[in-house]
Amino acid sequence: MIKKLSHVGIAVKDLEASVQLFSKLFSIQNVENEVIEDQKVKVAFFRIDGTSVELTAAVTPDSVIAKFIQKHGEGVHHLSFEVDDIRAELSRLRAEGFQLIDEEPRRGAGGYLIAFLHPKSTNGVLIEISQKLKS
Amino acid sequence: MIKKLSHVGIAVKDLEASVQLFSKLFSIQNVENEVIEDQKVKVAFFRIDGTSVELTAAVTPDSVIAKFIQKHGEGVHHLSFEVDDIRAELSRLRAEGFQLIDEEPRRGAGGYLIAFLHPKSTNGVLIEISQKLKS
Repeated sequence: MIKKLSHVGIAVKDLEASVQLFSKLFSIQNVENEVIEDQKVKVAFFRIDGTSVELTAAVTPDSVIAKFIQKHGEGVHHLSFEVDDIRAELSRLRAEGFQLIDEEPRRGAGGYLIAFLHPKSTNGVLIEISQKLKS
Repeated sequence: MIKKLSHVGIAVKDLEASVQLFSKLFSIQNVENEVIEDQKVKVAFFRIDGTSVELTAAVTPDSVIAKFIQKHGEGVHHLSFEVDDIRAELSRLRAEGFQLIDEEPRRGAGGYLIAFLHPKSTNGVLIEISQKLKS
């Protein structure tokens, strides 16, 4: 069961320039950063109330974010919804007819397990579901 | 000052079909609907914790949503951030160099005053700021 909108992922070309821009937009100076090696991206998080805005940039040209920007330009890349039990939710969504990109959850940013649904089955919106790992 | 991510607006072609789909996705049956005459759109709201997902469809072919879908396809249309004082926030953002689509706030869905920033000045993301009207 989906509990909350955990974050909005935004694909950007130049992370440092975009962090400056969104710091001004949100009046937030306190930004957390993370590199996710296996996705070849670096991420900056802006925490706004219970939701984060995650600016994501490619670190190599073959990153999915680089390919996304090449095709669509910069902009919203995905919406991530938090669940308690990602495996149970993936089973439920599969049974409901949603097309999964990830049949098995994998490690995402910020201490989460994540899995993506295919945007073809969700009106062009790339949906991620995520489960917070116990720290 | 931006307080929270109020909603994510998603542009869809067929509102009824998309409401069925997102009801399954979110396991939510309780959906509110509204027609916004001056924007020529109809909207369905899914409330998830403190944020809403708003599915938005055109009611006439000259609606901005129809034009958006023609250009970009279905998908995320805008992010709306709530503020206490929309006029003060528009002044601040203008002074910070953000390009405004709406110099003056106008009436949006769900009892809000809204104004859009130009996506050219925010990495391709259409940002709405909104202020809840006192009921």
